[in-house]
Amino acid sequence: MLDRPQQYRGEVTSPTDVYAARLDRARALCTHVGLDALVVGPGPDLTYLVGVEGHTIERLTALVIPADGPAAIVVPRMELAKVRSTAVGGLGIRIADWVDGEDPYALVTGALPHPLHRVGVSDALPALHVIPLGDRLGVRLELATPVLREGRMIKDATEIAELRRAGAAIDAVHRRVPPLLRPGRTEREVGVDIAAAIVEEGHRTGEFIIVASGPNGADPHHEVSDRVIGEGDIVVVDIGGPVASGYNSDSTRTYVVGTPDPEVARRIAVLVRAQQAAVDAVRPGVSAEQVDAAARQVLAEEGLADAFVHRTGHGIGLSVHEEPYISPGNDLELREGMAFSIEPGIYFPGAWGARIEDIVVVTADGCESLNNTPHELTPAN
Amino acid sequence: MLDRPQQYRGEVTSPTDVYAARLDRARALCTHVGLDALVVGPGPDLTYLVGVEGHTIERLTALVIPADGPAAIVVPRMELAKVRSTAVGGLGIRIADWVDGEDPYALVTGALPHPLHRVGVSDALPALHVIPLGDRLGVRLELATPVLREGRMIKDATEIAELRRAGAAIDAVHRRVPPLLRPGRTEREVGVDIAAAIVEEGHRTGEFIIVASGPNGADPHHEVSDRVIGEGDIVVVDIGGPVASGYNSDSTRTYVVGTPDPEVARRIAVLVRAQQAAVDAVRPGVSAEQVDAAARQVLAEEGLADAFVHRTGHGIGLSVHEEPYISPGNDLELREGMAFSIEPGIYFPGAWGARIEDIVVVTADGCESLNNTPHELTPAN
Repeated sequence: MLDRPQQYRGEVTSPTDVYAARLDRARALCTHVGLDALVVGPGPDLTYLVGVEGHTIERLTALVIPADGPAAIVVPRMELAKVRSTAVGGLGIRIADWVDGEDPYALVTGALPHPLHRVGVSDALPALHVIPLGDRLGVRLELATPVLREGRMIKDATEIAELRRAGAAIDAVHRRVPPLLRPGRTEREVGVDIAAAIVEEGHRTGEFIIVASGPNGADPHHEVSDRVIGEGDIVVVDIGGPVASGYNSDSTRTYVVGTPDPEVARRIAVLVRAQQAAVDAVRPGVSAEQVDAAARQVLAEEGLADAFVHRTGHGIGLSVHEEPYISPGNDLELREGMAFSIEPGIYFPGAWGARIEDIVVVTADGCESLNNTPHELTPAN
Repeated sequence: MLDRPQQYRGEVTSPTDVYAARLDRARALCTHVGLDALVVGPGPDLTYLVGVEGHTIERLTALVIPADGPAAIVVPRMELAKVRSTAVGGLGIRIADWVDGEDPYALVTGALPHPLHRVGVSDALPALHVIPLGDRLGVRLELATPVLREGRMIKDATEIAELRRAGAAIDAVHRRVPPLLRPGRTEREVGVDIAAAIVEEGHRTGEFIIVASGPNGADPHHEVSDRVIGEGDIVVVDIGGPVASGYNSDSTRTYVVGTPDPEVARRIAVLVRAQQAAVDAVRPGVSAEQVDAAARQVLAEEGLADAFVHRTGHGIGLSVHEEPYISPGNDLELREGMAFSIEPGIYFPGAWGARIEDIVVVTADGCESLNNTPHELTPAN
């Protein structure tokens, strides 16, 4: 391969004026926080701002946004045609292209205002570029997060439509899971089938595939293994990935092979109630930690507080994990348009685990769930 | 999903003493170049050094290697069990775990020697961690590349075995491509089938899938589109991804649907000769640019110099792209154990393109090709 593309790179889904508004907002926030400029490398921030999914790692692509002046994009010449075909063409962004052997950091410097005091860089820019850029500019770089998080956290109608599309796609995959979980198959074999189904149902790729059976379900971070699925196993299936536009799905369901132990079934019923309590708590003005507490409270009432060892959820969009984080201690107030997971789980080391996860979007008076397959312990067949 | 795993995270394939030797070498090179310590985040460098594939982005995982002292790994508590199950357990590396709300950068500082003058960070560490780490340490960070590139460039026997396994897996996929390229199908439909085949043949995932038909073949960076493949089309298929251990495959073949135009066939035959000439040029002591020139020379003799618009190849291993780069101007001397692609291409904008790519490993007196399907223009069927 010539360069490292993301698989099935997305189509631009937003019209040019949406990107223009996002750039204007970024400029205004730069001024507000006192940054002279932003340097944004490939990653969700770049996709969000101008619809470009740059994909080189060793060669620099960077959008340079002065707080008060025209933006420019530094791009390897091989990427030129692709970048021109994005919203960049209609946004009046100057293109500064370079070829191997030339110095891309000089192009960044040339696009920045002078004198320069404070420059923000995007979270995802790797050290490979952060270090030489900092050396070259002679200023201590800062994170651009304060300027970019606000816009990315609140999804507009186009973004919500894409998240809805992603949710429907992963729901279709979950509907195909029960017959895959036959006793005698390994988690890995099931994972391969799910990987194919994820693509067939409209994703670019399966970004993560967790098939955690029996005791493996007690590790929230298990992925797949060669463990053979057996009669009576509880199986946690946590799957998702980006659709064509780059927006991600993420949904977890818990399945049972055969008949569950009654106590296991009882605890999972409590988990389902806990998840629903958190969903029911979501509305504008409520804090992230209050939503987390709603799930935790139901589990605590049934003596399951200690079995819930992680936060309740994470924001989702062009990244699988982004703000807001639905965790204890996060007093961030929820606002309409925020999208995040609600995914409490219960874990019994050495025995089994369960987790139920939906993506929700905050509406004017509550939330919309983007995942709509049954929450109850689902029989494999 | 709770946290962002790489899909089908790999098994550790090297014994503990291999990692111990790699760490010792990194320490020695730190001393040699005057660095006090390295801070290595998730990515190929971390996998190379200790077999850990850390996968959180927002939560810091970092291996801290003082030039003269014991190493430590800073890791979110949720990752603890997984990290302990890797070579870290047998290497005597101190584990410093943390939970949300605690300060992981303080743990890095605590693991570093004092006073501190020069610290190297791994290429892949994102700005999200580079910036706060630099602020906290109060030293200007440098890239760890000079310390790590040397080890990663020269593959040992275990690594070569893994690259060989990856090569055989992608060859098996290419053998399945001809019947997929039926006229009337879109590139995207073919891409979905290839994605499934890549997983079925032993990869974790299809990291990149290029199906470039007709005029799309003239863009070296095309991926897939909704273009319908037609009778007579030339189709470039460039595919690969990691096998379980994390080592990558990458192979390109050029297919024809029906009967090719004689002049097209002639040019592709020249390309096949050019690719072979570069492969034949590979042996210890030859420079990277000499290998590049060998391919370029054959194309130039046939008037095709201008059609070859990129470098001849890139190193491969735990990254799809790494050193050595086989490009004009790179006088790096090849050594036994280096692994890289040989992938000249010819591109005729608006018309068609072709590329042939094998991964080769430098041996004592030449090279071994890890891809062994036919190079010639291959009929779809």
